Amino acid sequence: MSAASQAKRMRADLEIVAFERGAYTSYSACGMPYYVGGIVDDAEQLIARSPEEFHRRGIEVHVRHEVEEIDLAQRRVSVRHLDDGAVRWESFDQLVIATGAAPIRPNLPGSDADGVYGLAILEDGIRVRQAVDKGGFKRAVIVGGGYIGLEMAEALVMRGLDVSLVERGPDVMKTLDADMGELVSQALRGVGVSLYVEESVQGFETRAGRVSGVTTDQRTLAADIVILGIGTRPNSGLARAAAIPLGQSGAIKVNARMQSDMDGVWAAGDCAEAFHLVSRQPVHIALGTIANKQGRICGINLGGGYATFPGVVGTAVSKICAVEVARTGLNEKEARALGLEYVVGKIESTTRAGYFPGAGKITVKVLAERRTGRLLGAQVVGIEGAAKRIDVFATALHAGMTVEQIQYLDLSYAPPFAPVWDPILIAARKAADQL
Amino acid sequence: MSAASQAKRMRADLEIVAFERGAYTSYSACGMPYYVGGIVDDAEQLIARSPEEFHRRGIEVHVRHEVEEIDLAQRRVSVRHLDDGAVRWESFDQLVIATGAAPIRPNLPGSDADGVYGLAILEDGIRVRQAVDKGGFKRAVIVGGGYIGLEMAEALVMRGLDVSLVERGPDVMKTLDADMGELVSQALRGVGVSLYVEESVQGFETRAGRVSGVTTDQRTLAADIVILGIGTRPNSGLARAAAIPLGQSGAIKVNARMQSDMDGVWAAGDCAEAFHLVSRQPVHIALGTIANKQGRICGINLGGGYATFPGVVGTAVSKICAVEVARTGLNEKEARALGLEYVVGKIESTTRAGYFPGAGKITVKVLAERRTGRLLGAQVVGIEGAAKRIDVFATALHAGMTVEQIQYLDLSYAPPFAPVWDPILIAARKAADQL
Repeated sequence: MSAASQAKRMRADLEIVAFERGAYTSYSACGMPYYVGGIVDDAEQLIARSPEEFHRRGIEVHVRHEVEEIDLAQRRVSVRHLDDGAVRWESFDQLVIATGAAPIRPNLPGSDADGVYGLAILEDGIRVRQAVDKGGFKRAVIVGGGYIGLEMAEALVMRGLDVSLVERGPDVMKTLDADMGELVSQALRGVGVSLYVEESVQGFETRAGRVSGVTTDQRTLAADIVILGIGTRPNSGLARAAAIPLGQSGAIKVNARMQSDMDGVWAAGDCAEAFHLVSRQPVHIALGTIANKQGRICGINLGGGYATFPGVVGTAVSKICAVEVARTGLNEKEARALGLEYVVGKIESTTRAGYFPGAGKITVKVLAERRTGRLLGAQVVGIEGAAKRIDVFATALHAGMTVEQIQYLDLSYAPPFAPVWDPILIAARKAADQL
Repeated sequence: MSAASQAKRMRADLEIVAFERGAYTSYSACGMPYYVGGIVDDAEQLIARSPEEFHRRGIEVHVRHEVEEIDLAQRRVSVRHLDDGAVRWESFDQLVIATGAAPIRPNLPGSDADGVYGLAILEDGIRVRQAVDKGGFKRAVIVGGGYIGLEMAEALVMRGLDVSLVERGPDVMKTLDADMGELVSQALRGVGVSLYVEESVQGFETRAGRVSGVTTDQRTLAADIVILGIGTRPNSGLARAAAIPLGQSGAIKVNARMQSDMDGVWAAGDCAEAFHLVSRQPVHIALGTIANKQGRICGINLGGGYATFPGVVGTAVSKICAVEVARTGLNEKEARALGLEYVVGKIESTTRAGYFPGAGKITVKVLAERRTGRLLGAQVVGIEGAAKRIDVFATALHAGMTVEQIQYLDLSYAPPFAPVWDPILIAARKAADQL
């Protein structure tokens, strides 16, 4: 819808038709855990713009319409109206594929049982919230310790449930290095989540079609509700079926203007790849902030303008109750996989001047390339005020800065905001000292 | 002391002697308003390292010793012990001048009266706190609406005083543009400070040698205590007297290694200049964070190592109760003075996703050079979580980025931390759209 809005803004005469499988458009999928947790009262608050608002802007939106086939030869798509099952062909001159990503559903016994949820579209969030609101649930099991898993764990703790989280790896948050992920595991345990690491789920127990437990290789956990947070995969099946080339990641291959390899076919958002400026490879990272940028770029080009997407550096942020977590660039495993050699600067400091009330622990880890000192990545775990510091590292990655340069950046300082040497600077210095 | 510590770390055999006029070393001058305001309980908390700790590291520190003359020809300084008045000569091979800056005292009737305070050294903060602790004060007048003035206004409001602030300009915070400064003026009024703008102080009324009022060109304000916050000036008199060249700013001229123009004489901190990377001119900016960096650079070089100070971009941050204020780079007036033409991107957004509890207003203003789009500066005013965003702009200034580049930075996003388009990106886009 971002692409649609932008294209319409550029060229008012464009006739734009959008099909959406769900009942809602332009909502904050990232807000779902907070809606489930009761921090956000009403699902309507997550909706930026309704189909009616798009209509007023001259964009025709059909919700509950699923596109089932793309016919490139005849420039048309086949659309099923999910309410009555009617199928029709709709023609196009230019096609934008923005089908997003879907939570991975493990192919395990019972994974389709009632009460097992993945969070893909807003309706999923609404269904989970309604199920919890009904009451009577005591135990929740989260499968997977990524962002969604952790945020849903927090949400369900806030709703008073006993929450267990099962993670295959040694710690949650695999996008961090193990030493940093461990800090997040601690935080999770600290808020009362029972964490089972190095366990893999074998299946789901059911009772009358409803989930009643999660079986791992080591135990069975009773469950009234199960949330799947084992990652997402691009919804690129429709594109693949139409022979629109996908990249190595399985997402649709696009150039910097968001054009696919097929003439007049565009892709943006969680179904498309993005170029990673540090690894210098196309990647699939399903995040709303990337999706919005790509949508805008796509719309500008579609509307006859010119814009290119510079790429991503792998920035992400989350929060588990009082603990903030952020990362950008490459972690150690990713750097090694690329054959990059690096030094590490890891430090503990405080979010504010040590003597200032509310100052608390922040751990910053920086990776810099051997010899060149080029920043490769950074990770931050700490209390309130810690995580947004990742943006300095993200900016430095875009600019190709070295840790030598970062250590003397003129960052803002006053006692309520930082120690006189911001933790960013200290971590960069520590890395620079290893070079 | 930062230079001393660093030099000693580099070369343990160096004999280092430090003279300090005050009774304390290595303290956070920026913490004084919070000590006065009672947010920090004990002045000791502001002290990073005592003279005894330096002694243990092999650095000889003499407090209450004032250097009165530098004799470059004979490589010696004349030092007065302030306790007994004894004067002696002390010789050196290498000299570091780190005399800091002093609050400007207006040459007006009564400006030396008891109860009129400038905050230079820790003793000043202790004296103000003691005076307020004694009780009986009802009315405070702050002269000048810069960082110190505002922070002291907040501190004294917190101590229950009626606080008035007199500012010569149309708004407080002259380092911001007027439209942004106005937001800070509003915040100040919002916490109960009586703000008198476009008024200039003519003198101070006294009773038995104690201040009793502040006379402006429009009124007389009763005052039990007066704080001077009309700026600082480098303490460079000692250097000037020894014919050590000063820059245009009146601070000691230094190269990137913190060497003055005189052989074997170094300068660092608030008494020295710093190169401004955006204006491309030496400037005098008295801030602890710059002083610490320069001290470190100076110490590394002094100890036989090699380090250069890359320069500053004019970053500063402060907070008036719930309102955070930050700036970096050039403001409109500074850009015009340099003959630079620019476009402005100014936006209002929210600190978190709009639907997330605790989200509040943030105003971001960005200046970009005409034609090139190069970022020239940024200003931020907003609620908690707003100000530290300035660091992204500061980093972008160091890297010489354009607003076109900044608008698509891969900054961190999750609902508790930012809207899906961070206010930084929206402001940069707004500026880019004017180019």
